[in-house]
Amino acid sequence: MSAEEALDVTAYLREELPPVEAALERAVIAIEERPDVAEELAQAIRHGVTTGGKRLRPILCVTAYTACGGLRSDGVYDLACALEMIHAYSLMHDDLPCMDDAELRRGRPTTHIAHGEAVTTRAGAALIPLAAIQALRAARALRCEEETSRLVASLLMQAAGAGGMVGGQWVDLLGEGQAFGPDELNALHRRKTGALLAASLEIGAVAAGATEDVRAGLLEYGRAIGLAFQIADDILDATASAEVLGKNPSDEELDKSTYVALFGLDEARRRAEAEVARALAALESARVSSLELDALARFVVERGS
Amino acid sequence: MSAEEALDVTAYLREELPPVEAALERAVIAIEERPDVAEELAQAIRHGVTTGGKRLRPILCVTAYTACGGLRSDGVYDLACALEMIHAYSLMHDDLPCMDDAELRRGRPTTHIAHGEAVTTRAGAALIPLAAIQALRAARALRCEEETSRLVASLLMQAAGAGGMVGGQWVDLLGEGQAFGPDELNALHRRKTGALLAASLEIGAVAAGATEDVRAGLLEYGRAIGLAFQIADDILDATASAEVLGKNPSDEELDKSTYVALFGLDEARRRAEAEVARALAALESARVSSLELDALARFVVERGS
Repeated sequence: MSAEEALDVTAYLREELPPVEAALERAVIAIEERPDVAEELAQAIRHGVTTGGKRLRPILCVTAYTACGGLRSDGVYDLACALEMIHAYSLMHDDLPCMDDAELRRGRPTTHIAHGEAVTTRAGAALIPLAAIQALRAARALRCEEETSRLVASLLMQAAGAGGMVGGQWVDLLGEGQAFGPDELNALHRRKTGALLAASLEIGAVAAGATEDVRAGLLEYGRAIGLAFQIADDILDATASAEVLGKNPSDEELDKSTYVALFGLDEARRRAEAEVARALAALESARVSSLELDALARFVVERGS
Repeated sequence: MSAEEALDVTAYLREELPPVEAALERAVIAIEERPDVAEELAQAIRHGVTTGGKRLRPILCVTAYTACGGLRSDGVYDLACALEMIHAYSLMHDDLPCMDDAELRRGRPTTHIAHGEAVTTRAGAALIPLAAIQALRAARALRCEEETSRLVASLLMQAAGAGGMVGGQWVDLLGEGQAFGPDELNALHRRKTGALLAASLEIGAVAAGATEDVRAGLLEYGRAIGLAFQIADDILDATASAEVLGKNPSDEELDKSTYVALFGLDEARRRAEAEVARALAALESARVSSLELDALARFVVERGS
């Protein structure tokens, strides 16, 4: 890509952030205003949703929507927020004492530290149906056809549910049918990242009324950058470990199910690059032309380096 | 009601149980067969769903469906199972150490005792989107219109979510806008029972293509028996406490937010009966004639005595 074609991806992410944050604020206020939501629960939801962060999932959703010819509106940002609500639920539960037992996230107390374990478990679970309702309402506001609304909700729930726990590639990699211990389960759980990223793209395409070909292309793009994102995460973790240890960590020191442990650092980097190339090829073969999606695919692997 | 009109409700519940259990088994097998569901997770879901029990929610859903002219089929039992999946999620989370910390349910180890806290938290949360997917698929199999399918999913998610945590009556009772402590929150959480019972009826009516009047009548019936069910639960708890204590428990010994603590045993009984009468009146004014729904309304308050 020549210099004049390249897009300043950090500027793009910065521009997209305010409308995403505004939509999230609308969503949280709507939850707070429900007469049937206990105040404790709404407070925990606000804590879990207002985490800061890059809001990559909603931005990917809006970008897919516009790349498929949709116009920016409050409605599409509202739809995109449903993905961030699922992401927030997953972080709230991940941080629980029985999971990662994390006390801080982005320098702030985690939700269960601030609001307790019981309320956080309930608030996290409540975000799943609230996200489904949010998506159904937003799809209606966007005047999606009924079939489209149903598909949007269904894709969101697939990504939120057990179906989103483990990407297909990882099932292949780790051996289908094998029983997973807690370590594998946690490792696989982290892979749901990929499913939610892919759903962000596919939901954006579906809501814009994209053709089957375009939708399939964006899904493949989403799966590829989801996997690239995971590999990049593993590389970041291994690099951070190396800095702490003053040497490259041995296999024993690494989570066995990371890409770096399985393939080594160089091969992991090569695979991340290959996934980016696959993402770009998927766009091209679906004839989706979007400087933003091109740049975001690259951003996903380069963000840490 | 004369003797020849009365229905043997226990026989009816016994007859409805096998098709409900068969549909639940189909749902669990479908989850187990998903290549993207980790085995540990599917095992915990099977444990949490196959609890025995009366399966009141799916039976109410099927009964509403047939009372509105729908015919019994695998499809409607599949739809009804989505309600039981939400109920199972709620029991799995209720029993967690950070909530009620229960080790046994119906004489069997609770899911977190058998499968661990982390897996149970995840499996419970996964049941919400799996139930949404189950409902959307079943509505399609029943050849519901798209708008109807979307409404069914939306009602299910309302009942599963924060909206289902607290019935409107309880918000009125306890004072809107007041901050709830953990005790109140737990008490209110138990009230979600009412929302899920009401949703069982409304979803059955909507799926059968009932008119607005009939749907509203069944919703009111559902709300009334949901409230009657809760009051009956409070009465059962208080009676059980009285047996243990050898006297009627004092206010201090009772959960303050129960109907019995608030109104006394006699007034609580009177209110439960009044809700049953309201349920029957709602059916009559909506011109829904169903011996089964009549008998089920009475069963709800009489089951313990």
